[in-house]
Amino acid sequence: MRLLKERILAEGQVLNGNIIKVDGFLNHKVDINLMRDIAREFSTLFDLEGLTAVLTIEASGIPLATVCAAELGVPLVFAKKSKSDNIEGGLYQSDIYSYTYNKSVTLLMSMQWLGSDDKVLVIDDFLANGEALRGIVDIADQAGAEILGIGIAIEKGFQPGGQCMRDAGHNLKSLVIIDKADENGIVFRET
Amino acid sequence: MRLLKERILAEGQVLNGNIIKVDGFLNHKVDINLMRDIAREFSTLFDLEGLTAVLTIEASGIPLATVCAAELGVPLVFAKKSKSDNIEGGLYQSDIYSYTYNKSVTLLMSMQWLGSDDKVLVIDDFLANGEALRGIVDIADQAGAEILGIGIAIEKGFQPGGQCMRDAGHNLKSLVIIDKADENGIVFRET
Repeated sequence: MRLLKERILAEGQVLNGNIIKVDGFLNHKVDINLMRDIAREFSTLFDLEGLTAVLTIEASGIPLATVCAAELGVPLVFAKKSKSDNIEGGLYQSDIYSYTYNKSVTLLMSMQWLGSDDKVLVIDDFLANGEALRGIVDIADQAGAEILGIGIAIEKGFQPGGQCMRDAGHNLKSLVIIDKADENGIVFRET
Repeated sequence: MRLLKERILAEGQVLNGNIIKVDGFLNHKVDINLMRDIAREFSTLFDLEGLTAVLTIEASGIPLATVCAAELGVPLVFAKKSKSDNIEGGLYQSDIYSYTYNKSVTLLMSMQWLGSDDKVLVIDDFLANGEALRGIVDIADQAGAEILGIGIAIEKGFQPGGQCMRDAGHNLKSLVIIDKADENGIVFRET
């Protein structure tokens, strides 16, 4: 997606350890107009017949997923991290390793809000090692929900998450894949 | 706000410990159409001349705040909880106590994304003890940003957060104030 590549080149920063910082428009300060452009791009990339919900994982995926849900006219359901007193009753759970926080966390979703009648689009802002995505896919599988597609804004192509998901047969589309990011700049994969 | 009261009465559940569970439409599964109605209500309640951003705190306030930012045509900026490797450089920080998780957490916001030229609307889904709100107001104060208003979907009137904020002179508006919630039902404050 040309527009997103341009924003990454203009405003993104590469930090030590292959961290690509795009928090001025994607996941800290959020440019809602760009989120809407991204949502419209996703709507052209997937066959979303019968879609019942957009799924994501707290926290940084929520703004983009909210705008996608608004554009697609369906509810948003987001998986929560770790146990909160506000959640009770039947829960889907999936344990993942958070490289962002260097610890294991448990993704939780109430069984009330996802079931075998659901057809979902999974959305996240970033895909690197793919642990969060593995967790939400696991939860959708536990629910018996059908995953119509997985839409990612920025995939780090030099980390294994995207390839693992594609190898497992998931219909994953990343709007931008970054194959290299270092002091010499950012190299995008031709798509 | 009549529509929100009706949804709370129809779908909300009161759990032990005065927990009001509205996670079927507000903060786990999210009804985007209702969020849009709430956003439009906020836009009539505040003088938002010169607004530059909507602020909130991760995670459950993000969906509502995203829709508010979309309706109002400004970016969203959300405070993060605890330290992440993805944040570096100058940070506003505010320590709060999370009653949800029974532990202290630090709210963080990059100094890049909020400053003294900003005029902000603070949005959150729930207000009870007001710790998260105290933290985000503290961060806005550190930044020298002007807070045009604080919009809350549901305030628990039997907990002190709302009164503290009003006593401190903040322009806080809650669309629904719940004065009592127990096995006999939910009592709304007349507004």
